Amino acid sequence: MSKIITIIHGPNLNKLGNREVDIYGRETLETMNKTLKAYVSSKGIELNIFQHNSEGDIIDTLHREEKTSSGFVINPAAYSHTSLAIRDAITANQRPVIEVHLSNIYAREEFRQHSVTAGACLGQITGFGCYSYILAIKALLEKN
Amino acid sequence: MSKIITIIHGPNLNKLGNREVDIYGRETLETMNKTLKAYVSSKGIELNIFQHNSEGDIIDTLHREEKTSSGFVINPAAYSHTSLAIRDAITANQRPVIEVHLSNIYAREEFRQHSVTAGACLGQITGFGCYSYILAIKALLEKN
Amino acid sequence: MSKIITIIHGPNLNKLGNREVDIYGRETLETMNKTLKAYVSSKGIELNIFQHNSEGDIIDTLHREEKTSSGFVINPAAYSHTSLAIRDAITANQRPVIEVHLSNIYAREEFRQHSVTAGACLGQITGFGCYSYILAIKALLEKN
Amino acid sequence: MSKIITIIHGPNLNKLGNREVDIYGRETLETMNKTLKAYVSSKGIELNIFQHNSEGDIIDTLHREEKTSSGFVINPAAYSHTSLAIRDAITANQRPVIEVHLSNIYAREEFRQHSVTAGACLGQITGFGCYSYILAIKALLEKN
Amino acid sequence: MSKIITIIHGPNLNKLGNREVDIYGRETLETMNKTLKAYVSSKGIELNIFQHNSEGDIIDTLHREEKTSSGFVINPAAYSHTSLAIRDAITANQRPVIEVHLSNIYAREEFRQHSVTAGACLGQITGFGCYSYILAIKALLEKN
Amino acid sequence: MSKIITIIHGPNLNKLGNREVDIYGRETLETMNKTLKAYVSSKGIELNIFQHNSEGDIIDTLHREEKTSSGFVINPAAYSHTSLAIRDAITANQRPVIEVHLSNIYAREEFRQHSVTAGACLGQITGFGCYSYILAIKALLEKN
Amino acid sequence: MSKIITIIHGPNLNKLGNREVDIYGRETLETMNKTLKAYVSSKGIELNIFQHNSEGDIIDTLHREEKTSSGFVINPAAYSHTSLAIRDAITANQRPVIEVHLSNIYAREEFRQHSVTAGACLGQITGFGCYSYILAIKALLEKN
Amino acid sequence: MSKIITIIHGPNLNKLGNREVDIYGRETLETMNKTLKAYVSSKGIELNIFQHNSEGDIIDTLHREEKTSSGFVINPAAYSHTSLAIRDAITANQRPVIEVHLSNIYAREEFRQHSVTAGACLGQITGFGCYSYILAIKALLEKN
Amino acid sequence: MSKIITIIHGPNLNKLGNREVDIYGRETLETMNKTLKAYVSSKGIELNIFQHNSEGDIIDTLHREEKTSSGFVINPAAYSHTSLAIRDAITANQRPVIEVHLSNIYAREEFRQHSVTAGACLGQITGFGCYSYILAIKALLEKN
Amino acid sequence: MSKIITIIHGPNLNKLGNREVDIYGRETLETMNKTLKAYVSSKGIELNIFQHNSEGDIIDTLHREEKTSSGFVINPAAYSHTSLAIRDAITANQRPVIEVHLSNIYAREEFRQHSVTAGACLGQITGFGCYSYILAIKALLEKN
Amino acid sequence: MSKIITIIHGPNLNKLGNREVDIYGRETLETMNKTLKAYVSSKGIELNIFQHNSEGDIIDTLHREEKTSSGFVINPAAYSHTSLAIRDAITANQRPVIEVHLSNIYAREEFRQHSVTAGACLGQITGFGCYSYILAIKALLEKN
Amino acid sequence: MSKIITIIHGPNLNKLGNREVDIYGRETLETMNKTLKAYVSSKGIELNIFQHNSEGDIIDTLHREEKTSSGFVINPAAYSHTSLAIRDAITANQRPVIEVHLSNIYAREEFRQHSVTAGACLGQITGFGCYSYILAIKALLEKN
Repeated sequence: MSKIITIIHGPNLNKLGNREVDIYGRETLETMNKTLKAYVSSKGIELNIFQHNSEGDIIDTLHREEKTSSGFVINPAAYSHTSLAIRDAITANQRPVIEVHLSNIYAREEFRQHSVTAGACLGQITGFGCYSYILAIKALLEKN
Repeated sequence: MSKIITIIHGPNLNKLGNREVDIYGRETLETMNKTLKAYVSSKGIELNIFQHNSEGDIIDTLHREEKTSSGFVINPAAYSHTSLAIRDAITANQRPVIEVHLSNIYAREEFRQHSVTAGACLGQITGFGCYSYILAIKALLEKN
Repeated sequence: MSKIITIIHGPNLNKLGNREVDIYGRETLETMNKTLKAYVSSKGIELNIFQHNSEGDIIDTLHREEKTSSGFVINPAAYSHTSLAIRDAITANQRPVIEVHLSNIYAREEFRQHSVTAGACLGQITGFGCYSYILAIKALLEKN
Repeated sequence: MSKIITIIHGPNLNKLGNREVDIYGRETLETMNKTLKAYVSSKGIELNIFQHNSEGDIIDTLHREEKTSSGFVINPAAYSHTSLAIRDAITANQRPVIEVHLSNIYAREEFRQHSVTAGACLGQITGFGCYSYILAIKALLEKN
Repeated sequence: MSKIITIIHGPNLNKLGNREVDIYGRETLETMNKTLKAYVSSKGIELNIFQHNSEGDIIDTLHREEKTSSGFVINPAAYSHTSLAIRDAITANQRPVIEVHLSNIYAREEFRQHSVTAGACLGQITGFGCYSYILAIKALLEKN
Repeated sequence: MSKIITIIHGPNLNKLGNREVDIYGRETLETMNKTLKAYVSSKGIELNIFQHNSEGDIIDTLHREEKTSSGFVINPAAYSHTSLAIRDAITANQRPVIEVHLSNIYAREEFRQHSVTAGACLGQITGFGCYSYILAIKALLEKN
Repeated sequence: MSKIITIIHGPNLNKLGNREVDIYGRETLETMNKTLKAYVSSKGIELNIFQHNSEGDIIDTLHREEKTSSGFVINPAAYSHTSLAIRDAITANQRPVIEVHLSNIYAREEFRQHSVTAGACLGQITGFGCYSYILAIKALLEKN
Repeated sequence: MSKIITIIHGPNLNKLGNREVDIYGRETLETMNKTLKAYVSSKGIELNIFQHNSEGDIIDTLHREEKTSSGFVINPAAYSHTSLAIRDAITANQRPVIEVHLSNIYAREEFRQHSVTAGACLGQITGFGCYSYILAIKALLEKN
Repeated sequence: MSKIITIIHGPNLNKLGNREVDIYGRETLETMNKTLKAYVSSKGIELNIFQHNSEGDIIDTLHREEKTSSGFVINPAAYSHTSLAIRDAITANQRPVIEVHLSNIYAREEFRQHSVTAGACLGQITGFGCYSYILAIKALLEKN
Repeated sequence: MSKIITIIHGPNLNKLGNREVDIYGRETLETMNKTLKAYVSSKGIELNIFQHNSEGDIIDTLHREEKTSSGFVINPAAYSHTSLAIRDAITANQRPVIEVHLSNIYAREEFRQHSVTAGACLGQITGFGCYSYILAIKALLEKN
Repeated sequence: MSKIITIIHGPNLNKLGNREVDIYGRETLETMNKTLKAYVSSKGIELNIFQHNSEGDIIDTLHREEKTSSGFVINPAAYSHTSLAIRDAITANQRPVIEVHLSNIYAREEFRQHSVTAGACLGQITGFGCYSYILAIKALLEKN
Repeated sequence: MSKIITIIHGPNLNKLGNREVDIYGRETLETMNKTLKAYVSSKGIELNIFQHNSEGDIIDTLHREEKTSSGFVINPAAYSHTSLAIRDAITANQRPVIEVHLSNIYAREEFRQHSVTAGACLGQITGFGCYSYILAIKALLEKN
């Protein structure tokens, strides 16, 4: 396995920690990214972190980073429920891709309880806050 | 209340006045923007007007302009019917956001009769052409 | 434009201010009607206000007042979601009819998120409390 | 608890005993009302009994009798399956309201197997003929 | 067979001839009623004609006129598509009841293509304008 | 109007009178055809009667007889609920076409309660047995 | 009528009083059973009380106790919404069976608003807490 | 007709030839573009070719190139099934637009079997690989 | 590739040019067939042309002509939307089969927007009038 | 019981053995018919075997052979899932009719998992290849 | 093939012969088991017969008896329509499993017309009473 | 946090390693349990492992082990998609419960793509084989 894991944060995750704190908590995206980097630092892994509000940018990053990444952790946020285009980009990607969600999507509104993107991934981890990402990194490491 | 209201025109509204004139009339987006600016000029309000064809750009604008705007008037156009990501961006926004439509969405095709974004807004005004925006500005002023 | 606007309050709006105050606020229908009358008094407009719990009475009023009214503001309340008969009465009415709702119907139970009557109206305004009616009156005046 | 319980018989219940006797039996509404009055006579309770074929009249009665009644027993009959307006009237009513049905609605046509009004009531009792009403009165007395 | 046939015109039919003339033609309800009376005059039949905008009034008329009528011709208009209460009133009626429509309901909006009331009738005749009523009267006479 | 009306009996109507007599009665197709011929004999009308079990044959007859017929009475039986091809054939036919059913389709299984062919016809008459055909002939004569 | 009524508490009712106290209250199953026994003690009735988490055990009890019971009160809890097998067991049972629920199922999540088992029962009582069982016992006594 | 045809390749088509070769074959987008250019070279046509992963970019291109293009060939890929915004952009475009797909969308997953964008196009060609584009160019030439 | 291509015109296409000219134009089937024959004459291809109103005849032709045809162009018309039997006949056919439509099915009634037969074909071409057939012939020639 | 059993093979079964051999095997219809005849030869039963691609022909055969057959074995193939007309023909048939399928319809595409014709039959046997027919013949013999 | 066939009777089949005799007849499970044993006695087959009301017990039996059985005949009764767990147990079983039903499930309530378990079986036989089991045993013997 | 984690394997997981090895791999449940025990041995955690094929047994275990367990890892297998009763048992459980699946449920049949039990859990992990359980144990340890 190569040394780079790409993290893709989907739409509105840049607002983390400021809003809807009853669902997502008060941790900001920056803090969360630091936690993730701290976690991998001792493992000789490098993290490549992106946040995109645009469906097209997420697809571009999945295409572009495939060459240098050994795996992807993606939180497609609201696009999980509608984006066939991101699903196709994941299917077209030869690296393992794992979908994560901060909150438990099954415990929220009905329209958030299905993911059209997860079927193209290796697996999905939902409901553990920032730790969902760490579990996904563990799973990528275990896989390789 | 601060002095800036942000107007976001969604996809294809830049084509206004040139096409489907039976539905949208012959007024162009430029003319409409002038009407809106003329309307607020005497009220000491400044308008900040954007037109985006990209879902991600609309989300970016909602995030970025939140700090300096006292309220938003958004016409998500076709994205009203599908974009959970814009809905989440509105929910994450602390300023009042009002959804407007030029035509009466209930009098059009069935797939235009439901809005997934309106539920995250303060309210929705639909069917009054350019005057839908003016009513929304009035409602924002009344609110603050 | 003639000088009379007819306001039709639908079922249960006579209970306003006494119940479900978290949704509808503490303003009673009487207070609201006074606010509306105060608003139009300086404009040379007369308001003709009705409240009906019966679907048939709403239809009768739409038929009867058409001759003398220059426009209608109607809050069909629960009948918005089911009454094809009121829809037909609006379609048969030659004056502009605007549908209003106090609360944002898109932010409530799923069965309140669609209106079968709005498609026959000029437009719909939802979510601004008593001010929804005032916006509708403004729209009628703008229209004429 | 005050001494008055209001009974509301919904549409077509005035025809009881004359038609569809295989479903509803041969007891007329008059006989049934006598049975109910006989039942409460020894308990110091007064019954206030209405039969309405009009949705609006049922709403009016729910509003008007709230002040003097300590509770309501309502059989909305066919309106149970469609009337959001009656549901709202029950929600707006501060007294306990219990929905009853003579026949077991779950054992009839599919369109009779769901009630949109019951969710706004304290509870529902279905399938025991005239005794459904008596059980509801017992439940109101137990409640108070 | 007795000599009286009851005609019930449903909601908004009092507006006939003034509106939506492309669908319903320019004949008014008065003219139509005259045509119907002229038709039966030579047959020794008396017509008992009602027009109701209220669901409850239609039910009341079905109940009240049953004793003296030998049959009913009903055009429930918009209530055809939603009123289980009128359906129950027809089921409870011992006289033959025939449903008619002026326009062909199958050639209109999807929500007008199903009737919940017709299943309780002897039959349905749809699409022949005023002549739908005459055909229904003929069918009642044939039946008795 | 020319002197020929074409009657098309759809699938399985040749079995009439022998089976499901509780629904269709004991009258055979032959007897019914005789009744129809007797009815028109005094009116100077000729009947052209067909019975087809094949969807294609019904379409062929609609095409072929259009030239010489002044109108059509069609009972598409089970094809009413599924045949878009017969619907298209009726739409393509310049003569008035009236759909009839012996039994009241609204009082039968749910899959018989909608007609995909009726929307292309002038109107539909359902529930009067053989007399449905006679009413349709009357309507054709009235029409021309 | 024999002297034994069988009470069947369905899945998770053994947890009553410890969890979800906002919905079900703090009364435990033991306390509730004592209340029920106290209620019948003066009436010469014996209660036979079971609690089963397994669908199969509920069916077994319905079969086995039929011989000695004069009636059943069953709270199928979550199985109400899915178990066709329990429905068949109730249908196959010759004694009257009444379905009860502690909370008002119509006021809860949509998937709890329909019962597939109630159609096979004599009736259903929902929303009165422990008193739902007492009303059901009353109804069984009234019945016999 | 002017000399420029604009080709728009939708999301993930830049990955062509590298992935899912059982569905899309081994031809890369570059090779395909060369084939298309070779095809038109002898016809005096110029091709203007774009590939966009972003919905907004596709809309922008449809707007911007309208002035100089005589027609469009668009493969909206996954956006075909969800993008009302692209549909609106095509509707607003005065040049003929033809939708193409490499694979036969009807022979794939159910969610790929419907196109919301095709209804706004002149027509759709699906299932012929690169040759779908050539057929579309032929159709544009035939059209002009 | 052999020299014969079989063209199958589905139900009602024999009426082409006489009816619904706003959708299908004024060209008759004969004229269209001549155009097609003219088109192939210079290519050494022979056309074998059939028009069937019967589903069974279309299946028979698909079976019978398979031996001598090198490919099929089929316009199943209304059967496209319902005929699983024709779908199976196409699946069972070893020659390439291409589905065509004159009008753009996606721009018509909702029930015409899905094809159950296209999934068994090589591809589908819709919306180009007679030229849809010519494009299909081109695709067959390209294929072989 | 008479000595003749009629076997009806539905659409495309004449192609058996040549196509989709992974589902249907390599046995041709001729071989299968020989197997069936061999099976009955020792039992004094005569087989009357038909294969029809047309829905109408299947109905005709069901009608015509009823007089001389003691029972029917029918494989309606694709018509099982759509043909209400064949269903009616089976209902109208006084002999026992058994539906068979070669493959297990429940293990195939979703649109093949329901039969609209089986409800009118005595029973259905699915999944045993040619032996499905033999089991059906056994069942007919057992029945008589 | 080994000498043991396992028969699994699902929920409520132990009540056979006592209830719903119009559907299932008066034969008890004991009598039916004797008939089955008598049938196989002359064939050197041993029957291993179970009746379970619990879904889990059916799964256990499918697992446990796989080692010693050469095939299974299972009547999952009401579990046929809901149990994905039994479906998985059948899929996991290496012996042929055949699903049977006493009554014709297609002729009963809509919720009984689909089987989720049959897709994992070799085939399904429905509608022949006890003889359904005998046909299944024949099919198992034919298979081995 | 106490030292015991309870693992509940749902229906058919005892067959692991013997069947459907393309989906679940060749590892048996025993081997998997050993792997899990080895994993926790160095962490001072004790595992309490159950496998149940019965819904009721899973509920019983959730109830009984709650007192001594600090958390639960549950793989409800097929019951994930249907069991409201297990959902209620998880809701009633005060310890954190995490749902796991060996395969990625989103990449399988549609009926496996939704979980009714996950909404009552802390979160869900799907698609990592045995490692799904290890990730869940990590999440429980992180949580406490």
